[in-house]
Amino acid sequence: MKLVTFVVPTPVGQIQRIGAVHQNKVIDLNMGYTHYLASKHGSSGAYELAAATLPPDMIAFLKRGEEGKDRAKLTIDYMAKYQARGNLLGPRGEKIVYEMTEAKLKAPVPRPNSLRDYLSFEGHSSFSGRRQLDKGWYEMPVCYKGNPDTVIGPDEIIPWPAFTDLLDYELEYGIYIGKEGKNILREQAEDFIAGYTIFNDVSARDIQLKEMVAGGLGPAKGKDTCSVMGPCLVTPDEVNPKNLQMVARINGEVWSENNSGTAYWSWSQIIEFASMEETLYPGDFLGSGTVERGCGMELDRWIKPGDVIELEVEGIGILKNRVGEKPPKRKFAR
Amino acid sequence: MKLVTFVVPTPVGQIQRIGAVHQNKVIDLNMGYTHYLASKHGSSGAYELAAATLPPDMIAFLKRGEEGKDRAKLTIDYMAKYQARGNLLGPRGEKIVYEMTEAKLKAPVPRPNSLRDYLSFEGHSSFSGRRQLDKGWYEMPVCYKGNPDTVIGPDEIIPWPAFTDLLDYELEYGIYIGKEGKNILREQAEDFIAGYTIFNDVSARDIQLKEMVAGGLGPAKGKDTCSVMGPCLVTPDEVNPKNLQMVARINGEVWSENNSGTAYWSWSQIIEFASMEETLYPGDFLGSGTVERGCGMELDRWIKPGDVIELEVEGIGILKNRVGEKPPKRKFAR
Repeated sequence: MKLVTFVVPTPVGQIQRIGAVHQNKVIDLNMGYTHYLASKHGSSGAYELAAATLPPDMIAFLKRGEEGKDRAKLTIDYMAKYQARGNLLGPRGEKIVYEMTEAKLKAPVPRPNSLRDYLSFEGHSSFSGRRQLDKGWYEMPVCYKGNPDTVIGPDEIIPWPAFTDLLDYELEYGIYIGKEGKNILREQAEDFIAGYTIFNDVSARDIQLKEMVAGGLGPAKGKDTCSVMGPCLVTPDEVNPKNLQMVARINGEVWSENNSGTAYWSWSQIIEFASMEETLYPGDFLGSGTVERGCGMELDRWIKPGDVIELEVEGIGILKNRVGEKPPKRKFAR
Repeated sequence: MKLVTFVVPTPVGQIQRIGAVHQNKVIDLNMGYTHYLASKHGSSGAYELAAATLPPDMIAFLKRGEEGKDRAKLTIDYMAKYQARGNLLGPRGEKIVYEMTEAKLKAPVPRPNSLRDYLSFEGHSSFSGRRQLDKGWYEMPVCYKGNPDTVIGPDEIIPWPAFTDLLDYELEYGIYIGKEGKNILREQAEDFIAGYTIFNDVSARDIQLKEMVAGGLGPAKGKDTCSVMGPCLVTPDEVNPKNLQMVARINGEVWSENNSGTAYWSWSQIIEFASMEETLYPGDFLGSGTVERGCGMELDRWIKPGDVIELEVEGIGILKNRVGEKPPKRKFAR
């Protein structure tokens, strides 16, 4: 399944829902399931039951685990059967099926519970072998933690922070955790993956490199103003993370091209390490890190305001965003 | 005011509330305010109005801003007046005033919206001058981001992670953000501080140093299994961050002693930097970093399982925790 979070404009403001992409349409899962329940048991308890068992919020949905996914699959099948007979509405006349142009997508999990981004690709970390990696790099997957409050989704503008001259994209993908767990062994780790999405780890290189050297505490300001995720959460049955073609296009031109199979660290190893003595929760996001030559810094090519960045990952889709205008420079001084 | 989050055991499970410490008792702020409203307007709308204007959850309360604080102050004064006449109960017989021994304290914000910890003390970063700091250190405050899901409060056991032989305490304090803001100038920054608390940034030094060298992304696993905050949130009118005596005692013996006034970076500067192109939210926690000689690593003295750590910061209180038992060693290997 390809699951999305989308917003619907209404006279009382935007309402956020979750859906499944099916035959180039978006099915509102909660409303579709409400219709299914009403058709079987009558509409009296259908709304409350659907709200509890297939809630219209992605993290709440992920917390329903395998049973939630089964209900989502059932809803897609049910709607596919009924759609053939015309445009189906909910028990009280609600819209269930949206054209792709009507459903404005957000990041699949608009506000992840947390954001860890790992260095799983040796070639990016070593600058294609130009930099000697510490032996510790090969002993455990390392990460920095990003800012879940600045996540944006497909087609949103990537803000150009006023403090940077060197904004960069990063071609990555990542996983959402679907089940709470601690000290998860790698053999069980796949059960904890709710799905995959594309990740553009937008980076302001000037300040990032400066702060990493300044204190040894890793990147913060250089990565925290914007992270892009989307367009959808694809369930593990449709994705083989050992072999996903990954491409970054800037204004239609291919800048980066690589394959997820080049990772040194597997998701199972990363989950085992991340969950050591520390609980992972539904809605946590774990990033793969950048593939080799998957960012402008490695290519010495730099994006400009107005550029269109498309990250494409096989089996997931395309994550497309325009870079915003550059505001007047703003500096920080003590 | 000294504000706390506390839990009350009930037959239907623990209920979490917020309170104010006054004359060595804890006043349940929401219930006290409900009593006040009921005494003025009758009890019919009092519960709903108190829930909306002085909610029993710390982040929700912080979102009420100055008006919320005014209501809390009013409630303390109101209760102080009535307490003299005997033990006051809520409109439906609810308890309002708790003995300190009855109210089990949690971290003031049990699950902060985010956790950034800055290096504001030069002496800790430079190991009392034994290490040359990069010039970037003096140009901007740097931070790592911690794990808000593993925050514990006063008197809770500090778990000894199975992967470490070198657990350490860090003598710090920090602020909670009380108001949403972006690109906050240092002149306005103090308005965004809801209050201060003590912070023990528990660190597993062996894995922390290894991961910092391995990838340059800063600490993660080495700091993420436990952070201790408490015992209370003290409002800015009672705290002068330029001069707070700070002491760490292990099993009653003073190991660390210093003063917050030695900070190179002020809270106003940190807030200006942290909010550059990035929104701060009520419930965000920002740590001061460790004061010079404020951790065992700097002293080459190491805590053991069963030790009692007390961090005392003038005007805030004492944050006391016992270190848990050391479980069988668990290693990670690729």
